[in-house]
Amino acid sequence: MRILITGAAGMIGARLAARLLAEGTLGGQRISHLTLHDVIAPTPPPSPIAVATVTGDLACVGAAEALVSNRPDVVFHLAGIVSGQAEADFALGYAVNLDGTRALWDAIRLAGHAPRVVYASTAAVFGGPFPDVVPDDFAPTPLSSYGAQKLVGEVILADYTRRGCMDGVGLRLPTICVRPGTPNRAASGFYSSIIREPLVGLPATLPVPLTWVHTHASPRAAVGFFIHAATLDTVLIGPRRNLVMPGLSCSVADQIAALARVAPAAPALIRQKEDPAVWAIVKTWPQRFAASRARDLGFQAETSFDDIIAVHVEDALGGQLPTTAPSF
Amino acid sequence: MRILITGAAGMIGARLAARLLAEGTLGGQRISHLTLHDVIAPTPPPSPIAVATVTGDLACVGAAEALVSNRPDVVFHLAGIVSGQAEADFALGYAVNLDGTRALWDAIRLAGHAPRVVYASTAAVFGGPFPDVVPDDFAPTPLSSYGAQKLVGEVILADYTRRGCMDGVGLRLPTICVRPGTPNRAASGFYSSIIREPLVGLPATLPVPLTWVHTHASPRAAVGFFIHAATLDTVLIGPRRNLVMPGLSCSVADQIAALARVAPAAPALIRQKEDPAVWAIVKTWPQRFAASRARDLGFQAETSFDDIIAVHVEDALGGQLPTTAPSF
Repeated sequence: MRILITGAAGMIGARLAARLLAEGTLGGQRISHLTLHDVIAPTPPPSPIAVATVTGDLACVGAAEALVSNRPDVVFHLAGIVSGQAEADFALGYAVNLDGTRALWDAIRLAGHAPRVVYASTAAVFGGPFPDVVPDDFAPTPLSSYGAQKLVGEVILADYTRRGCMDGVGLRLPTICVRPGTPNRAASGFYSSIIREPLVGLPATLPVPLTWVHTHASPRAAVGFFIHAATLDTVLIGPRRNLVMPGLSCSVADQIAALARVAPAAPALIRQKEDPAVWAIVKTWPQRFAASRARDLGFQAETSFDDIIAVHVEDALGGQLPTTAPSF
Repeated sequence: MRILITGAAGMIGARLAARLLAEGTLGGQRISHLTLHDVIAPTPPPSPIAVATVTGDLACVGAAEALVSNRPDVVFHLAGIVSGQAEADFALGYAVNLDGTRALWDAIRLAGHAPRVVYASTAAVFGGPFPDVVPDDFAPTPLSSYGAQKLVGEVILADYTRRGCMDGVGLRLPTICVRPGTPNRAASGFYSSIIREPLVGLPATLPVPLTWVHTHASPRAAVGFFIHAATLDTVLIGPRRNLVMPGLSCSVADQIAALARVAPAAPALIRQKEDPAVWAIVKTWPQRFAASRARDLGFQAETSFDDIIAVHVEDALGGQLPTTAPSF
């Protein structure tokens, strides 16, 4: 089985690659080739599997065609510009998120072998006003360029799937939390930093109100979504191929209460300071989702924010908190 | 006031151009320049207004930029490949309906003057299963490439409007009936031909069941939609800029009954013969729409199929039926 991952140097892409390389199989089939693509060089762990790393811009002429020239059985498309950056840099967001995706879908169409395609879309395809719980069939009217660009990718994925050019599944991801590493330009980044930084004794800023509710899934759960989407029987999905993924809904205050349960001194490191630019984007996002179709299809996320923190401690901090937090 | 119409040689585009030239004003402002664009040369009626005709493909490099170089105050974007043809010719449909529209939206964005843009979208952005009456906020999941391509244009129009690059309004048009002239490659073409041909004594074929319900508006009503969208206060619309247009919902049997009221011998000229290719597309379309937002905003369509036939007799047949129908 041959697999392609775009955005393979990104947070989820790298974890997905690592899991595939560790397991050596996908859906019971042995992985023979793994192609990892990103604009910066992916650095996969050592493996007996043949791994090719490719750097470049998907929207460049010929790039997408070259990537699918070995006719991968499964394509995971995670490459993209994050929400804050897509809003700040209009042309770059459209070039990467729309043109890049379109180029990949067309290269897959022209390759002609109709692979399984799993697409990283976003809950930001939805725009308010929202009901308390957003149903699966809520009409997407994005209020960010990122959401609009991802929605265009979904629409074409569904049409190309209907026409037999691919076997596509779009995943409308909730916010992935706790993101390891350093902050990126996603407007949702603070949801992770208010946990990640205080856990290791560093300060963090909360730019939105404590009462604000949001839906999260861990990086481990997100990787699970991609694996599940790559291996499930897509006949069960039907023609509406873009699925709202499940997640754990809680307020920022709930997040901080869970943080206090594992690190009592940590919440004192969080400073509240509203950021109008971040709040302007975040407040346009939905808060809770039904995600009924995805749950029925077997997609699973955490059920408490304590679990989400536990995953972070296990996967990003080696299973334990620093014994002595740095002072500042 | 400067106005651009793309698709100006098409059925609605030509009528829109003729109405603007006849009235000489739009929304109370004098029209100074009218640019008519299509892949085949538009043939406008004589007028004191400066009319430029441009032929070419919107998706060609530089074509869209040239079209908006005089910074039109209002852009009517009607150019497109119809549904049956977009399904039959995959690449052409995407090139014209998606790439052409994207090129125009980008040229408008780069022109920088944020004109009013009125976009011919379609009720075919919706895909079943449908409720009896499709509400305005029904989630679009198109089941034709035409619907998918038009939906992509809507999504970008809404985002470009949100970002201040244009003041866009998308019109989800019902089937326009009775289309004058000869059949085109729209899968909906029979809705017109079963009226148009028998009215002048010619045979017509009905490819779908008599009981099938569909929503129609006359070409005159459609031109009215475009004029109204160009002149209304878009603040009243809010951020959801793509509006379901109103129409008259009736069964094929109702259409034929109305035909019999103006031309008692005409229905005998209709032959029922199911066409699987046409039926496969048509049966994926919704049947009735609430169109509540558009009605509240002042968009108006006919309220009986008799009115739709009367408009056809007035506008396409010079106000009267042929005194002697040809026999065959």
